[in-house]
Amino acid sequence: MIQVVAFDADDTLWHNESHFQETQLRLAAIVERYAPREVVEARLEATERRNIRHFGFGIKGFTLSMIETAIEISKGEIAARDIQEIVELGRSMLAAPLELIEGVEEVLDALSERYRLFLITKGDLLDQRNKIERSGLAERFEHIEVVSHKDARTYRTLFATRNAPPEATMMVGNSLPSDVLPVVEIGGHAAFVPYHVTALHERYDEIPDHPRLHRLERVTELPALLRRLGAGAQRTR
Amino acid sequence: MIQVVAFDADDTLWHNESHFQETQLRLAAIVERYAPREVVEARLEATERRNIRHFGFGIKGFTLSMIETAIEISKGEIAARDIQEIVELGRSMLAAPLELIEGVEEVLDALSERYRLFLITKGDLLDQRNKIERSGLAERFEHIEVVSHKDARTYRTLFATRNAPPEATMMVGNSLPSDVLPVVEIGGHAAFVPYHVTALHERYDEIPDHPRLHRLERVTELPALLRRLGAGAQRTR
Repeated sequence: MIQVVAFDADDTLWHNESHFQETQLRLAAIVERYAPREVVEARLEATERRNIRHFGFGIKGFTLSMIETAIEISKGEIAARDIQEIVELGRSMLAAPLELIEGVEEVLDALSERYRLFLITKGDLLDQRNKIERSGLAERFEHIEVVSHKDARTYRTLFATRNAPPEATMMVGNSLPSDVLPVVEIGGHAAFVPYHVTALHERYDEIPDHPRLHRLERVTELPALLRRLGAGAQRTR
Repeated sequence: MIQVVAFDADDTLWHNESHFQETQLRLAAIVERYAPREVVEARLEATERRNIRHFGFGIKGFTLSMIETAIEISKGEIAARDIQEIVELGRSMLAAPLELIEGVEEVLDALSERYRLFLITKGDLLDQRNKIERSGLAERFEHIEVVSHKDARTYRTLFATRNAPPEATMMVGNSLPSDVLPVVEIGGHAAFVPYHVTALHERYDEIPDHPRLHRLERVTELPALLRRLGAGAQRTR
């Protein structure tokens, strides 16, 4: 029986990647006299890949990568006021109101009576803490943790510390490598709920087939999945 | 008797603020045709204060503030290649080798036989994790935690979770508001070890007088302080 349901945050509880994509379109507009949109996107992607080791996945690193891309694409011709505009794009992202994904509050309400709820998110600590606060969801969770890597070791330690046996735990998220595969690896259950736009580092071709890996179209399908699994467990008693 | 010794990291275990100050000098050199050093420093400080809510205390936010300052000081005249140079300053800071503060390893070795050691640091999660790894000190600590705020509530929860009663815990750090005062407030001991350069957000005029607040010139004085406190506690038995 599942006792603990753990949620990823960005693109699982609230929209995130769509803001990056919108901002990218604005960057393309700022530098449109130097290159077409496709070229800007390809160059930005290359800059991000190059920078990820030092800059990480957050908005501030993304903003620095946009600045470098604009300088590179314009061959150093871009005006300082355009770069200032790119800094403003980053600041707007950091200040943007948080938009919950449809149905999230109802799902958490429905589950909170029967399950212990965790929130496990990766990224810039200050950004994530700010978002959690602005989401208004903090009080629904028994435990909230911001981690730097979502791998099997992280989940094993975290579940052990919080007395959540993997076999009684389900992780819900939009990332196969971060939310789904490591949890299945250590004996837990996972619900993979893809987001409608996919980040650079979240692209993959196929979803492995595994009895503890469930694919949902929407997070609102989660209560029904948990009921089915619960019923299954009871039948085998 | 003290059982747990908890350490701050930046400017307590390794040098940090001095890198910010050196980088600031390089920024002043890049924009020297627009303004003298003192003006650059004052404007950067103002930009940082304005941005701290969105950008936090890390290197990436500092880099964005340097870029904004340069654009502002040059009235939008600065060339893109100079801005690229500022991005490189940020990247160099992120990639800089970590320099331990003199005597830190010996102090940790000396204390590890007798005390449980914690590391409690604030800041960008990825930056901090990278630094902890590069420091080679991770294995000396029973527990390492990166927190978003260092206030009384954070310490109370953290110490409670780790079975570290405040009255048996000493926090060691270079920041009065983050490392010292909140720990003393909840009944713990603190050793204040100032760093030779002081960050913008760490300036204060006076150090309060309190029996559980100890001021040291160097971290190497810590074992002797703990011996004195231990001896004192034994005498009162």
